[in-house]
Amino acid sequence: MNPFEPQLRVPGPTYLPDSIREAGSRQMINHRGPEFARLLERCTSGLRAAFRTSGEIVILTASGTGGLEAAVVNHLSPGDPVLAVSIGAFGDRFARIAETYGADVTRLSVEWGRAAEPEAVGEALRAMAGDGRPARAVMLTHNETSTGVTNPVASIAATIREEAPEALILVDGISGLGAVPFETDAWGLDVVVTGSQKSWMVPPGLAMLSLNERALAAAGRATMPRVYFDLAAHRTSAEKGQTPWTPAVSVFFALEAALDLMEAEGYPAIFARHAVCGAAARAGLGALGCELFADPAHASDTVTAAHMPAGLDWKTFNAALRQHGLVVAGGQGHLAGQVFRVGHLGWVGLSDILGALEVFERVLADLGRSVERGSALAAAARAANGTQARATNAVGAPG
Amino acid sequence: MNPFEPQLRVPGPTYLPDSIREAGSRQMINHRGPEFARLLERCTSGLRAAFRTSGEIVILTASGTGGLEAAVVNHLSPGDPVLAVSIGAFGDRFARIAETYGADVTRLSVEWGRAAEPEAVGEALRAMAGDGRPARAVMLTHNETSTGVTNPVASIAATIREEAPEALILVDGISGLGAVPFETDAWGLDVVVTGSQKSWMVPPGLAMLSLNERALAAAGRATMPRVYFDLAAHRTSAEKGQTPWTPAVSVFFALEAALDLMEAEGYPAIFARHAVCGAAARAGLGALGCELFADPAHASDTVTAAHMPAGLDWKTFNAALRQHGLVVAGGQGHLAGQVFRVGHLGWVGLSDILGALEVFERVLADLGRSVERGSALAAAARAANGTQARATNAVGAPG
Repeated sequence: MNPFEPQLRVPGPTYLPDSIREAGSRQMINHRGPEFARLLERCTSGLRAAFRTSGEIVILTASGTGGLEAAVVNHLSPGDPVLAVSIGAFGDRFARIAETYGADVTRLSVEWGRAAEPEAVGEALRAMAGDGRPARAVMLTHNETSTGVTNPVASIAATIREEAPEALILVDGISGLGAVPFETDAWGLDVVVTGSQKSWMVPPGLAMLSLNERALAAAGRATMPRVYFDLAAHRTSAEKGQTPWTPAVSVFFALEAALDLMEAEGYPAIFARHAVCGAAARAGLGALGCELFADPAHASDTVTAAHMPAGLDWKTFNAALRQHGLVVAGGQGHLAGQVFRVGHLGWVGLSDILGALEVFERVLADLGRSVERGSALAAAARAANGTQARATNAVGAPG
Repeated sequence: MNPFEPQLRVPGPTYLPDSIREAGSRQMINHRGPEFARLLERCTSGLRAAFRTSGEIVILTASGTGGLEAAVVNHLSPGDPVLAVSIGAFGDRFARIAETYGADVTRLSVEWGRAAEPEAVGEALRAMAGDGRPARAVMLTHNETSTGVTNPVASIAATIREEAPEALILVDGISGLGAVPFETDAWGLDVVVTGSQKSWMVPPGLAMLSLNERALAAAGRATMPRVYFDLAAHRTSAEKGQTPWTPAVSVFFALEAALDLMEAEGYPAIFARHAVCGAAARAGLGALGCELFADPAHASDTVTAAHMPAGLDWKTFNAALRQHGLVVAGGQGHLAGQVFRVGHLGWVGLSDILGALEVFERVLADLGRSVERGSALAAAARAANGTQARATNAVGAPG
């Protein structure tokens, strides 16, 4: 943490390590020349490993929402029956994209704060099939940034494969992929989307997608209109080491540097670090009396949402936090004013969480709450300890 | 020019001045907080002045092609008769976007290398009206990057207003705006698009659009589907100092720094500088025996296309230029292998053009062409001199 800058604890954009900032400031190159071809190849192969897929990787110059739109318009046709499993604001957005382009969307809306249950997804798919409208695709959020909930994607995907073997599985992996374990191929996910400003520690501007053979076949039949987000144009240009439209070169530079850092740390260590930070954030906020919003069984290790402390409004709370240099996020959709959210993804370590919790302690005390100073820090340290021990065991202790 | 880096003389991305590179490397901020609101306001007000409009400015995280798609899908409905005036590869792309989204597109395709003639546009509009398909919109390229031609937008727009007063005028201003005189409001242009990596000296990643009252009214009726490129969502979010989807924050930082530089230099001086560089590039290449591709009456001051020297293929020529550190662009579409293109926009001065011409001289001599060393430089200097004198007179000499 830099004491002269605010602590940015929103769920993206995340902090940029120095090597990534430096890379993002490099002089421009010709995006139709060999330097860019090497850069594109480095980024796609690094992402292929991170996605855990042998499928195709496409990198779009857009925010994550652009990536979600690409996932929809390249693989569906107007009128296609689609099941949209939504557990929050971003699941709703994914559904709305499909509706806007004319899909026949059935929404399975789960109470915000809870994860989707595989059984409920299976039931919805059976009902659609019973209606004579078998789902062509299921849209699913991996990590719901608005509620701090991580869906059990592996088991939901297994249910989908059983109930609707032909349905494509389109996954919004924007705020989880790269920070928590994720298996694109092993889980049978056809299209997965992520965004540069999340776990990747890169400025916003790139949406990254994986596509498997099933997705490529579906793209050949899909008739929703697309030009800028036409993934086939990207795949054709990629054969020449190019993108069809001018790419956000400086963000590609940053992504290359980020993949270097992430591969040096190693994904198991990255996942353990996020598990520690998530556990510490939840334990610390809990110790301060902040009621966590997410079902504890599915709490996200990249973002924590908590109810506003009783009697406090968001504006006052946020202003006080900002005065002490802590920047967190408010609630989205109907949760505006009801919750606050703390991001712990990307370039984040336990000390960052402790620094943030110290500000929460101070501000709540200043605002007249009964807070025992140090209690959040102690709870966070204990939770971190336990999580670290489990993580170390999970990746295999020496000997 | 940095002697340790290649000379990047493609028509975008352009070189980044140090202050812009530094700005683009800043640490992230919350894109939903007051710092971003100030940044967005600074960028939109600076662009409003540069576009010479009192209309709305919207900044999208996308390449220029995304901006063209936004110009189409926000203002048209499937079936709308549209006249697409194309003078090259980018005009064709603009037309194709409208066709993909179901517009009833009539193409007025002008021979590549020539500008569109107002009379021909008027005739095409009369023919469409005579057919009972009066044009709802005319799509027009300001500066065609594939051919190095600048259309006489003011007179074409005047003709459109006369022949089809209700038609929207949608202008691809990507590679000219900010480098040559352009009057959005005075010329009556309803939607104008530009891109960050061109005259703005900023990395690619942002498309910037202006919208006047007529465009906003048309957007209310237009039914082409859009989510990511929905400009109404951007306008709503702008009221809170935000963008609807996560913006490319680092490119916004760079754009802010670029506007500071451009306003300090002053637009008349910027235009004069581009006029000088364009004249020098054309004169120098001409002196080397390279036949210029564009009609001299409409030659672009941001990019020059020239026929390949007789008997030379693009691969050999390009490899030789690169060996001497000069990076230029090849031909697009059916001009691939037929022409090469030299960019002279953004952070460029006469010395950059002279440096590039010296390499052309050397390479052509090495490849066995009869070249008098220094002839291109002398021709360029003479042309620059004359242009500078005219530019100085045009902006008003002191007293």
